[in-house]
Amino acid sequence: MSGFEPRVPEFADRVRESFARQRFMTTLGASLSLVEPGAVDIELPFDASLTQQHGFLHAGVVAAIADSACGYAALTLMDADAAVLSVEVKLNLLEPAAGERFAARGRIVRSGRTLTVCRADVVGLDGDDERHVATMLATMMAVRGAGLES
Amino acid sequence: MSGFEPRVPEFADRVRESFARQRFMTTLGASLSLVEPGAVDIELPFDASLTQQHGFLHAGVVAAIADSACGYAALTLMDADAAVLSVEVKLNLLEPAAGERFAARGRIVRSGRTLTVCRADVVGLDGDDERHVATMLATMMAVRGAGLES
Amino acid sequence: MSGFEPRVPEFADRVRESFARQRFMTTLGASLSLVEPGAVDIELPFDASLTQQHGFLHAGVVAAIADSACGYAALTLMDADAAVLSVEVKLNLLEPAAGERFAARGRIVRSGRTLTVCRADVVGLDGDDERHVATMLATMMAVRGAGLES
Amino acid sequence: MSGFEPRVPEFADRVRESFARQRFMTTLGASLSLVEPGAVDIELPFDASLTQQHGFLHAGVVAAIADSACGYAALTLMDADAAVLSVEVKLNLLEPAAGERFAARGRIVRSGRTLTVCRADVVGLDGDDERHVATMLATMMAVRGAGLES
Repeated sequence: MSGFEPRVPEFADRVRESFARQRFMTTLGASLSLVEPGAVDIELPFDASLTQQHGFLHAGVVAAIADSACGYAALTLMDADAAVLSVEVKLNLLEPAAGERFAARGRIVRSGRTLTVCRADVVGLDGDDERHVATMLATMMAVRGAGLES
Repeated sequence: MSGFEPRVPEFADRVRESFARQRFMTTLGASLSLVEPGAVDIELPFDASLTQQHGFLHAGVVAAIADSACGYAALTLMDADAAVLSVEVKLNLLEPAAGERFAARGRIVRSGRTLTVCRADVVGLDGDDERHVATMLATMMAVRGAGLES
Repeated sequence: MSGFEPRVPEFADRVRESFARQRFMTTLGASLSLVEPGAVDIELPFDASLTQQHGFLHAGVVAAIADSACGYAALTLMDADAAVLSVEVKLNLLEPAAGERFAARGRIVRSGRTLTVCRADVVGLDGDDERHVATMLATMMAVRGAGLES
Repeated sequence: MSGFEPRVPEFADRVRESFARQRFMTTLGASLSLVEPGAVDIELPFDASLTQQHGFLHAGVVAAIADSACGYAALTLMDADAAVLSVEVKLNLLEPAAGERFAARGRIVRSGRTLTVCRADVVGLDGDDERHVATMLATMMAVRGAGLES
């Protein structure tokens, strides 16, 4: 559908296994809701323990789910011997992050041999209502071998 | 020292009270370690519940403490009737975020009437050893009155 | 079409007049090719005087047309008494900027009272062939009255 | 002084030769004023042909000299067989870019094998007076061999 061709047939299992090792996603209460070539969605229910001073979701939580959605979207197209690292993330906060739950939708913009550029939109959800609360543009890196060096 | 002049004498109390209301900082285990005009430091002990898939601090946690350090550095110079909102944050991850504890050091680059530009450096600390793991460049906004609108 | 409602009927004239005063756009050889509510396209023919060391379009030229496309997209929805300023721009270079000509397509992501968030895609064009060479995420500001202060 | 050790003794010649091939720097009227390990400064006299609609230097020109200063700062520490590419640049405009002339001061934040993170400050100069008009945070990449692929 997306036009992206995964290099590893079991790309979705790889993403799910790696996500399960991200202890911070468990701490937040986040889960994977979509894993396709070039596209990963993460969902997160609102919880008061994740808020900033005005009671909205903290920008760091928004950044965390957007970063993981971008990183795993990038990983769907990487080689079997590659791990994914975040090089840099840029997040614009569009509205106070209010909602019963949130979704971060990571999509590949361009997949290169070493670097992958991704974007993610974060929405706040109340029933069927959806508000666009943030957008990310990020660079991810494939690292190979023993090191985790950029 | 910094050359910045706070407009509100009790700027440090304002920052401490607002920080105490950021429930997510409590969830992470983060605390304020410096509050001066134009400068705020946040410290965070390492905890396995905050990690990504390779056992390092998750980029979202790094973003969270850097964002709060930037936002509160901006707040030190704002009017009494202003609240602070994050407009956008940009974070470069320089090395895997390893350490017994971490510090995010937010500093004002330029303080305007509506917008404040800040940077933050995040370091990983082991005993006396300090490694530069990330750097942020961010825009914060003073919002006045009832709304929290950009 | 776009769902955006301009506040000033003559928004397109405003954009064209302001663009005509951007002497740097003339220096580059750039022109407006689309002005709609929330959307502005700028075109630029390749010229060897605009290149970096490998003969491709310099990143600064790519940034310039993307920044103007974003700023003018933002201006299409602003009040009659507002001028537009760039607060910050973030540009990812996806491929060497090769082409007979280039287009920067600025689109509003979210329009607020003071701040507008925009994105722009820059493509390199050869005949009917189109390559995605860069993407921008940017914040623009409406300034009112005599000053040009952020 | 800077603590950075160039891998190539003739790093300054490499930078000067590559800068001389950036035709766009000649078009702008920009020149190199400092080349040291990890640090490159570029100067630019004001010219009306480089302005935006309010008569200040266009953000794209500010981006161009900051990008080149960052890229060449990165190149000072690269291997003999590496060329430098801009991966992404992020520029905050702090004040209207006014001045008789401008300087962009690129500095390495962290030099890795493949990626180098740099920052640049751009100042407007009038006689001895100096105003901080913009700041950049950017990622540069060392590319080796025939390709210019990220």
